[in-house]
Amino acid sequence: MNTKAFGAHAGDKPLEAMDITRRDVGPHDVAIDIAFCGVCHSDLHTVRSEWGGTKYPCVPGHEIVGHVTAVGSDVTKFKVGETVGVGCMVDSCQHCASCADGLEQYCENGFVGTYNGRTSDAPGHTLGGYSSHIVVDDKFVLKINHPEDQLAAVAPLLCAGITTYSPLSHWKVGPGQKVGVVGIGGLGHMGVKIAHAMGAHVVAFTTSENKRQDALDLGADEVVVSRNGDEMKAQRGSFDFILNTVAASHNLDAFTSLLKRDGTMVLVGVPEHPHPSPNIGNLIFGRRSIAGSLIGGIAETQEMLDFCAKHNIVANIEMIDIQDIDNAYDRMVKNDVKYRFVIDSKSL
Amino acid sequence: MNTKAFGAHAGDKPLEAMDITRRDVGPHDVAIDIAFCGVCHSDLHTVRSEWGGTKYPCVPGHEIVGHVTAVGSDVTKFKVGETVGVGCMVDSCQHCASCADGLEQYCENGFVGTYNGRTSDAPGHTLGGYSSHIVVDDKFVLKINHPEDQLAAVAPLLCAGITTYSPLSHWKVGPGQKVGVVGIGGLGHMGVKIAHAMGAHVVAFTTSENKRQDALDLGADEVVVSRNGDEMKAQRGSFDFILNTVAASHNLDAFTSLLKRDGTMVLVGVPEHPHPSPNIGNLIFGRRSIAGSLIGGIAETQEMLDFCAKHNIVANIEMIDIQDIDNAYDRMVKNDVKYRFVIDSKSL
Repeated sequence: MNTKAFGAHAGDKPLEAMDITRRDVGPHDVAIDIAFCGVCHSDLHTVRSEWGGTKYPCVPGHEIVGHVTAVGSDVTKFKVGETVGVGCMVDSCQHCASCADGLEQYCENGFVGTYNGRTSDAPGHTLGGYSSHIVVDDKFVLKINHPEDQLAAVAPLLCAGITTYSPLSHWKVGPGQKVGVVGIGGLGHMGVKIAHAMGAHVVAFTTSENKRQDALDLGADEVVVSRNGDEMKAQRGSFDFILNTVAASHNLDAFTSLLKRDGTMVLVGVPEHPHPSPNIGNLIFGRRSIAGSLIGGIAETQEMLDFCAKHNIVANIEMIDIQDIDNAYDRMVKNDVKYRFVIDSKSL
Repeated sequence: MNTKAFGAHAGDKPLEAMDITRRDVGPHDVAIDIAFCGVCHSDLHTVRSEWGGTKYPCVPGHEIVGHVTAVGSDVTKFKVGETVGVGCMVDSCQHCASCADGLEQYCENGFVGTYNGRTSDAPGHTLGGYSSHIVVDDKFVLKINHPEDQLAAVAPLLCAGITTYSPLSHWKVGPGQKVGVVGIGGLGHMGVKIAHAMGAHVVAFTTSENKRQDALDLGADEVVVSRNGDEMKAQRGSFDFILNTVAASHNLDAFTSLLKRDGTMVLVGVPEHPHPSPNIGNLIFGRRSIAGSLIGGIAETQEMLDFCAKHNIVANIEMIDIQDIDNAYDRMVKNDVKYRFVIDSKSL
């Protein structure tokens, strides 16, 4: 199937319109007419080859929502016309311990990313959601139960939503707990909404005084400007859990010291330059933990979508045409977006 | 009560014989005739004021075993003549959340250390186990059920034993699990024995080729020389839990990469110089944790002593007279001890 897409032919070239091919619909496949695709920092890092290892042509995009146009002969879970989503993964080995546990994101043989992943399809690597259509194994397709008019704002749930939902759920955040969310950006704004819906007392940490009201509007019970030493000091030893969404190198001790005994801070971003080495005394003298978490499994992603539909949670977005993608990337680098760009696929 | 002790009058002076005073036995007190006292790295750091904040005269020692010589009017748990122990703590606030949970080591108002802690007793700070007698609140006295002829080798359980038992127990180490113990010294040799007795498959990590047979004799199922890249690589992604007893600055990534998904590495030593900043990707791509743990609570210390008595676990020790303490410190700094010095209190 010939498909319109937008991608780059090299790391130093701008994205441009291109024609790509999608595979024929196999027995287990679902063909999707893409309606919207969210714009993630990973898109930019990959397409510009900032992490290395990018295969070209590169078509990014892994926050995909759209409608089913065809299903394979063995597909029973999806019907033509249904609203569906595709996130960061389109395949995994399906036989390792992590896949068996429904945690495909930790597939011991490496999950297949929605773009830049290994595949036998042309051109030999996966091509993502900056395109009009995609064909995906039904195991990696999610049902979307939000109202149709929210669809664009649902797209970011497929990466930003699950990346924050998964650790909040795994570490059992809920009522009676005090939970911090560090960084109020694409990920953090979802973290605040989800932790609030889970019933926790949510404290948003931001470096920007001017995000204070925004964070309260997102559902935070308190907002702490992390550059303010007195505000930080007042929070010492009081958190059950902290979700740290900041990938930029920063002082982790400022946050581990805010944890209660047995509290955990989870990092979801790999820093380009290492964080200053964390103070081990902060961990030892409170039996505290620093952990990491990666997106979420497929079953958990469905659970998150259902949870968000039930609690009427979507992302706060700015809609763009695909032709504005380079400008959107530039603004994203400057954190100048509230809080996620979403591409209207009609513009392709 | 006038009491013989050995301590220092300043950080740059050698330890010497001195007379100290123990308080009269109050209603809740237990008076103990000290038989043996283990020698911990913390003794050396404190008496030489390497951590700062040492009050002089300083009498170290917090791995104390001996016999009850008197009990206060309200003491029902202990009788004259019984064999007892005292570890790192002699008091805590008894009303914070951690004390209420039996985790006095995390007392939110600061536990009172067995030496260099705050007290109204003369001389205004606590004096430890390098002495002939001690008077301790009964809540901080432990029962010892090991055979009397093992008593010297029981002393190190009060710090080295509980420091390793507590995290192994808290993180539920047991049969079917693969557990690493990093560093085969005073703490690590106890960690190997205890993890083995808990039923885990134990892998000892040492930098010394010549500790290989020793580690097997201690109960390790496998020994890995951590300087050997191939041996380390063969262990990747295979550990449920790693107890890291090495306080010296070292590369934590070499061990976090050995954890399975959802595995935890617990550090029990505060490094003098920071470890190289840990690789956050190692945590994120396997939902792994780095945590800390501090000694153990009083109830847990009793549980550990009972567990060790049941499994016939004691420390491997070298007995010394108190007059040899400076030499023992020098050897301890060079890791030249198998695996804990214990002072014979008769030498006082």
